[in-house]
Amino acid sequence: MDLTIQSARKVAAKVDGLFSAQGDDFETVAVNALEVCFEGIPGDFHAGLTRRSGSREPWYPRGTEMRNERQLTILSRAELGEAASQMGIDSIEPEWIGGNLTLAGIPMLSMLPAGTLMFFAGGATLKVDFQNAPCRLSGKTIARNVGREGDVALALSFVSSAKRRRGLTAWVEKPGRIELGETVELRLPEQWIYPPE
Amino acid sequence: MDLTIQSARKVAAKVDGLFSAQGDDFETVAVNALEVCFEGIPGDFHAGLTRRSGSREPWYPRGTEMRNERQLTILSRAELGEAASQMGIDSIEPEWIGGNLTLAGIPMLSMLPAGTLMFFAGGATLKVDFQNAPCRLSGKTIARNVGREGDVALALSFVSSAKRRRGLTAWVEKPGRIELGETVELRLPEQWIYPPE
Repeated sequence: MDLTIQSARKVAAKVDGLFSAQGDDFETVAVNALEVCFEGIPGDFHAGLTRRSGSREPWYPRGTEMRNERQLTILSRAELGEAASQMGIDSIEPEWIGGNLTLAGIPMLSMLPAGTLMFFAGGATLKVDFQNAPCRLSGKTIARNVGREGDVALALSFVSSAKRRRGLTAWVEKPGRIELGETVELRLPEQWIYPPE
Repeated sequence: MDLTIQSARKVAAKVDGLFSAQGDDFETVAVNALEVCFEGIPGDFHAGLTRRSGSREPWYPRGTEMRNERQLTILSRAELGEAASQMGIDSIEPEWIGGNLTLAGIPMLSMLPAGTLMFFAGGATLKVDFQNAPCRLSGKTIARNVGREGDVALALSFVSSAKRRRGLTAWVEKPGRIELGETVELRLPEQWIYPPE
């Protein structure tokens, strides 16, 4: 075996923002607690055991029913700050781009590996699907929120500025209640590159 | 960013075995086709949108309801052959250790990364959760099947001999019918080691 294997490891973090999208819009609103169940956040725009495929799954006809691995979006305020600075704006708020949860204390949050488990002190567990990819739709929402609706160049700049900074998508492994300020223990799985380079 | 990132890649494979456990036992029986749905294989020992935690999840009290990411077990006959040879027996059959599917044509199948998508020609899609870990229970079943029931040393030797050769667990991303001899296209996601070493 020529693979270099990195053992499973633990990392600690803290919940510094919670948000939910309880309407027809993917933008979220700050809340003090989130109840999560196997469907995700009940009533949320992204809730469901399954979802319809879109442009992120070019291998399926649009609208194909598939397992919903994108129930929650997890962001880092530090990464959003870096993206904002690169776009030449003051900030990007998690609500504008559909964030459900912000975590503090993890450098390069968006680079956490698939399968990372997030054990919340209150008992809920989320499991990371993968790094999220920034899209033009989020860029448009940001432009509108900074009072520059219709600024196509600004909207587009989100795609490059937020690359590898747009957080993670995750699903609920174990239901529970997540509260603002709660601590989280992350368990990163063993890792290796396949095949060896 | 100091991470070396390996791009997403495609790999081709072929289904050379299909099996189902339609009883109370985790051992499987060969079949010519498998219908898979969001619950996994209907009626199978491991079917379900959720499951009860066990010794693989020491962080939960045993029996905790959690999302079922272990709906199917995918094996490689080549890897099983290597494990058998190390145990000093002629073969390990996929049925003995609860295999649902064997794939041919992929070296080191067990090392495929979490999140690998398996697109079956007939329309079903499976998504890899993670490498499976060999346990003593499977070792006992192997000992019984080779006519050495109660041979504790043989049973135990499976744990070390099948390490990183015990295949993958996966769940159904898109339902469909999988047939023997079918081709599969695998899509390995982007990969990197977090944090950089």
